Amino acid sequence: MIPHDSIVALATPSGAGAIAIIRISGNEAITIGNSVFKSIKNKELTQQKTHTLHLGHIMDGTKTLDEVLVSIFKGPNSYTGENTIEISCHGSTYIQQQIIQLLLRKGCRMADPGEFTLRAFLNGKLDLSQAEAVADLISSDNEASHQIAMQQMRGGFSNEIAKLREELLNFASLIELELDFAEEDVEFADRTQFQELLNRIEFVLKRLIDSFSVGNVIKNGIPIAIVGEPNVGKSTLLNALLNEERAIVSEIAGTTRDTIEDELVIGGIGFRFIDTAGIRETQDVVESIGIRKTFEKIEQAQVIVYLFDSAKFKVSSSDFIIEIEKIKNQFPLKPLVIIGNKMDVLTETDIHTLKATIPNILLISAKSKLGIDELQNTLLSFVNTGALRNNETIVTNTRHYDSLLKALDEIQKVKFGIETNLSSDLMALDIKEALYQFGMITGQVTNDELLGNIFANFCIGK
Amino acid sequence: MIPHDSIVALATPSGAGAIAIIRISGNEAITIGNSVFKSIKNKELTQQKTHTLHLGHIMDGTKTLDEVLVSIFKGPNSYTGENTIEISCHGSTYIQQQIIQLLLRKGCRMADPGEFTLRAFLNGKLDLSQAEAVADLISSDNEASHQIAMQQMRGGFSNEIAKLREELLNFASLIELELDFAEEDVEFADRTQFQELLNRIEFVLKRLIDSFSVGNVIKNGIPIAIVGEPNVGKSTLLNALLNEERAIVSEIAGTTRDTIEDELVIGGIGFRFIDTAGIRETQDVVESIGIRKTFEKIEQAQVIVYLFDSAKFKVSSSDFIIEIEKIKNQFPLKPLVIIGNKMDVLTETDIHTLKATIPNILLISAKSKLGIDELQNTLLSFVNTGALRNNETIVTNTRHYDSLLKALDEIQKVKFGIETNLSSDLMALDIKEALYQFGMITGQVTNDELLGNIFANFCIGK
Repeated sequence: MIPHDSIVALATPSGAGAIAIIRISGNEAITIGNSVFKSIKNKELTQQKTHTLHLGHIMDGTKTLDEVLVSIFKGPNSYTGENTIEISCHGSTYIQQQIIQLLLRKGCRMADPGEFTLRAFLNGKLDLSQAEAVADLISSDNEASHQIAMQQMRGGFSNEIAKLREELLNFASLIELELDFAEEDVEFADRTQFQELLNRIEFVLKRLIDSFSVGNVIKNGIPIAIVGEPNVGKSTLLNALLNEERAIVSEIAGTTRDTIEDELVIGGIGFRFIDTAGIRETQDVVESIGIRKTFEKIEQAQVIVYLFDSAKFKVSSSDFIIEIEKIKNQFPLKPLVIIGNKMDVLTETDIHTLKATIPNILLISAKSKLGIDELQNTLLSFVNTGALRNNETIVTNTRHYDSLLKALDEIQKVKFGIETNLSSDLMALDIKEALYQFGMITGQVTNDELLGNIFANFCIGK
Repeated sequence: MIPHDSIVALATPSGAGAIAIIRISGNEAITIGNSVFKSIKNKELTQQKTHTLHLGHIMDGTKTLDEVLVSIFKGPNSYTGENTIEISCHGSTYIQQQIIQLLLRKGCRMADPGEFTLRAFLNGKLDLSQAEAVADLISSDNEASHQIAMQQMRGGFSNEIAKLREELLNFASLIELELDFAEEDVEFADRTQFQELLNRIEFVLKRLIDSFSVGNVIKNGIPIAIVGEPNVGKSTLLNALLNEERAIVSEIAGTTRDTIEDELVIGGIGFRFIDTAGIRETQDVVESIGIRKTFEKIEQAQVIVYLFDSAKFKVSSSDFIIEIEKIKNQFPLKPLVIIGNKMDVLTETDIHTLKATIPNILLISAKSKLGIDELQNTLLSFVNTGALRNNETIVTNTRHYDSLLKALDEIQKVKFGIETNLSSDLMALDIKEALYQFGMITGQVTNDELLGNIFANFCIGK
């Protein structure tokens, strides 16, 4: 049963600002709002049109709490699908709290985290994957994760799943029909068409499952281990990689950056740089522990960047080569980017020698910003940005990934069933299981525990 | 000249939340908004009515930045008096920044702190003291300061001043007229009526000036020095004074209180408790320094609370009495509240003896919450809450206080002028000066430096 009691919450970030928004949703939202609102034009909120704004005061009896603007949204034309009002008040926490307390006394209750979006889902305004995208959208902090959340919120992903589920459902009912006529051994479901559908579904599922490796990386950032001694220019490199866009962003937010952050956005993708101490060969026990730690950190990374001072190459070239070899031996499957910094002090001959000794070396000068573009492109090449550019559907949610894997498993069972002429009743069971997994993604199949888990991660007021 | 370029700012607190509001004001606000907005119903914002809400997407070219609700306010029916739109977007800082950057590219510029309210003032939507009240309202964190800011914002205070200024202006022009006919020695301005007006003005000014002592205290909180040894129960007392209301407030804000705060709200008034080490008599140099520090802290307080463990009174009564006498001698004019804590362990006889020895003693038990109500009432009695309860106009702003003092001075000069038959031309000068001070409060007289100072203290987006 869909609850219709009126819930209230602060929808803007907590703390003082120019404006705060208090949101109420529920059958009685407009009536409750009206009971504490005195319009400057003596209007009754209950008699106003949807999508209109009204200036007036929030009154606690004869006491004026604030001058506010009230927005009215009449269900089903609201975010939640229910009657909703938003009170735009002055941003003092005192006022926010006084108004919320007043509304609680007037019959509202505090909304749980994500409860507005939960209601939007229960009232059919969003499917479950769209609802989840709302939380992703709010927490997205770079272009790529924003783009994916936006696409998912607009239904790109679940539409595809819902359509396939629809087709599969058709076949399922035909197969069920066969069960009713089991004695007569008829086939209502055309096996060739069915197999063709299953192939299509399998193809889509595999593509979506594959996209998760990109999606996950985009959502959580790509971990990159930087291996390099002190003074090879790690800070300068990270500073050089900080793109202009980010600098402007800081300015708008009114913040300044004093220290090097570990997270950088390059070409719209988040990268997390993990600083390691290097792996210089040593007899020293303490230093060996250092090397083990470096290796542990590299383990967590997807890409290794080996950074060294190219000006020192002439005097200790074998050191560098041994270190590089050691990393390669230890992590044969991890992409390794070898960067010689401080190329601005090298002669033509030095550069020639370096490139001949270490193929694939990337020479840069972090200080003079030489070779930074090439490095950025190299880092981006480890992400399938093509999928992003082509606006392909990308799965970022572990829950979806899980359901897709299970659905694929069930679909493959069905396929095998057809190939081996499995009886309709057993095949029907496998199809049901696949349909269940599809439904779990879009929310056509759901339960309280699942919903509880999903919406508990939302912020209050959304 | 009033600027009309379009300014943009985030109006909600920075950080991630469910919703963020981006506000644009200026002649082109709606046109600029329309250029980046794609309505889901293909509506043009420029053709919509004022005070309406529209669902759609913010588009950066073909790229969708967010699904948003746009509010339209057409000048003069807006906060600033200009065309204004408010974009209610998803609360990720990434989205906020992307939309603001887009709007900057489309011809907006970042708003300065308080610039929206400055425009409201320049466009005659608010007078200056009302504009200042907006900032006070946002920063108010207790009932009393909220009430005063609210009253000032609604014009209670400046209406009175503006009306008196109007009357004074009438007389001023009559006096000026006399100057034109100086040769003929006529009196257009009825001196008796004028004197009556001046008396009225003087009365109002004195009342407003007097109210500042309350207003200032309410705005900044009342400093109270607690004099007491460790373990007499200072923490427990502060905890007991924490009213229930505050506890609920903490719950709503989602915060927990771990430590004793120095600021408490009692009966809607803020009190700042200053902890001191006590003033026990000693030969020890180090301890003497402690006593000097205690006295310095008491100096800053308006009220002194002397707290002692009443259970120890029997064994060291003379100590307590000497200390109390010392405080009284040092600060003869500061109100002193003497509190004997831990009354729950006293016998009837003890209580009787204590009350006989120390008149005006307040016996409490912070632990058992005995006598707390009486203590709260005692503390509140040091504030003129009557003025608050009667909704009298209270001046809280130092700038206003200053102008009121100067205005009073000028008005008294004019009065003296009438009494001593001062010539009209000299009287006209004094009246002008008084009118100037009146105008400074409401903003009828102003200059860029003054406006700059006032609005620089606002938050951005207001």
